[in-house]
Amino acid sequence: MKILIVYAHPEPCSFNGAMKDLAVEVLTGDGHEVAVSDLYAMRFNPAGGPGDFLEREDANLFRYQREQIHAHAAGLFVPELEREMNKLAAADLVIFQTPIWWFSLPAILKGWVDRVLAMGFSYTEAARYKTGLLGGKRAMLSITTGGLAAAYAPEGAHGRLDAVLSPIHRIFQFLGMEVLPPFVAYGAARVQPEQRAAYLAEYRERLLTLEAVPPAARQADTVAPKS
Amino acid sequence: MKILIVYAHPEPCSFNGAMKDLAVEVLTGDGHEVAVSDLYAMRFNPAGGPGDFLEREDANLFRYQREQIHAHAAGLFVPELEREMNKLAAADLVIFQTPIWWFSLPAILKGWVDRVLAMGFSYTEAARYKTGLLGGKRAMLSITTGGLAAAYAPEGAHGRLDAVLSPIHRIFQFLGMEVLPPFVAYGAARVQPEQRAAYLAEYRERLLTLEAVPPAARQADTVAPKS
Repeated sequence: MKILIVYAHPEPCSFNGAMKDLAVEVLTGDGHEVAVSDLYAMRFNPAGGPGDFLEREDANLFRYQREQIHAHAAGLFVPELEREMNKLAAADLVIFQTPIWWFSLPAILKGWVDRVLAMGFSYTEAARYKTGLLGGKRAMLSITTGGLAAAYAPEGAHGRLDAVLSPIHRIFQFLGMEVLPPFVAYGAARVQPEQRAAYLAEYRERLLTLEAVPPAARQADTVAPKS
Repeated sequence: MKILIVYAHPEPCSFNGAMKDLAVEVLTGDGHEVAVSDLYAMRFNPAGGPGDFLEREDANLFRYQREQIHAHAAGLFVPELEREMNKLAAADLVIFQTPIWWFSLPAILKGWVDRVLAMGFSYTEAARYKTGLLGGKRAMLSITTGGLAAAYAPEGAHGRLDAVLSPIHRIFQFLGMEVLPPFVAYGAARVQPEQRAAYLAEYRERLLTLEAVPPAARQADTVAPKS
């Protein structure tokens, strides 16, 4: 497979960094072709807007989707986006390696979503969900949370993790992608080193069995906190 | 009241821009003191990280929350964040005026959340949810969606809007804020001009009756699409 890891953490020595490095090592060793978009290292600009385009169809009134459609047809995306689109177009599987900040993606990764998944390129008015233009590709969230697993139990402080992840999974579903079950390292910064080592061992196993994993969409509500 | 509108749209002549302008006019006319953070105009940097700080406690390993606590105690946030924190600290009510992009906040606004709502300033290990440090303040989402109301019906393509909004509302709840019911302009860019005018008239009414609105938390599951 061709695999794209979109990685969003400002600290290379973070646990997210370790997970990204592990995935590159394991997947490459397993014969896959791996590309990484290290958004902080790239200084990726998260703010979607007029800066996405080399030239605009309408220089007076900025309508984002209209400009995306025009840019897709005319090849007018800035190189930063063109490159990401090419990487995504080539990928069979996309992994988001990211912490969850404020019950959602960090802004730099949300900006990748806002800007790279442009109308015309990844969906159209008619082609979305089952007919989305990224059909045939798969996607997986590999995340860390600040809170421990207990905080995401049904009666936990933060409620069920599925409520946090389902709007993110919907992005992939909207594009026609098949969503794999997420890999979750709860409380990565708070747990003991032994637990972190266990997370990495478990992630290695998951990465080696990606082909066998049934999509999350077919097994709704299985995202349960680990003890 | 002191009201802070955090506004996230790249086009001043957008419907979001019109809603922001209307809110400034109506709320000021109603005797409130209104501040606006126009994130695109400010060229607000959405990418939370080492750039948030004038100086770091640990220059080698970047741990975000640890640096936030240190910076809060030592006055080491960059001026861009210091200013936003002061505006937020002074506000009785915060309004997010924003489109929903990809079932979530646009990256520039998510970046405001990631960076401004720093640990130490708005919450601590012990002070969160009911004891969050922004207790006594209120918050309201004023949003536009791309999809029409029917797409957010229970059987609609996107599912219930509440699934999109609840992780955003949880940000405010985590900080101890009281959440007002959202104001939703469905399909703002697709509906007829008459509907847009109706949205603005309805929003004007809402703004004039803010004090009377019961918080969303006390009336769960009432976010129903309008016909």
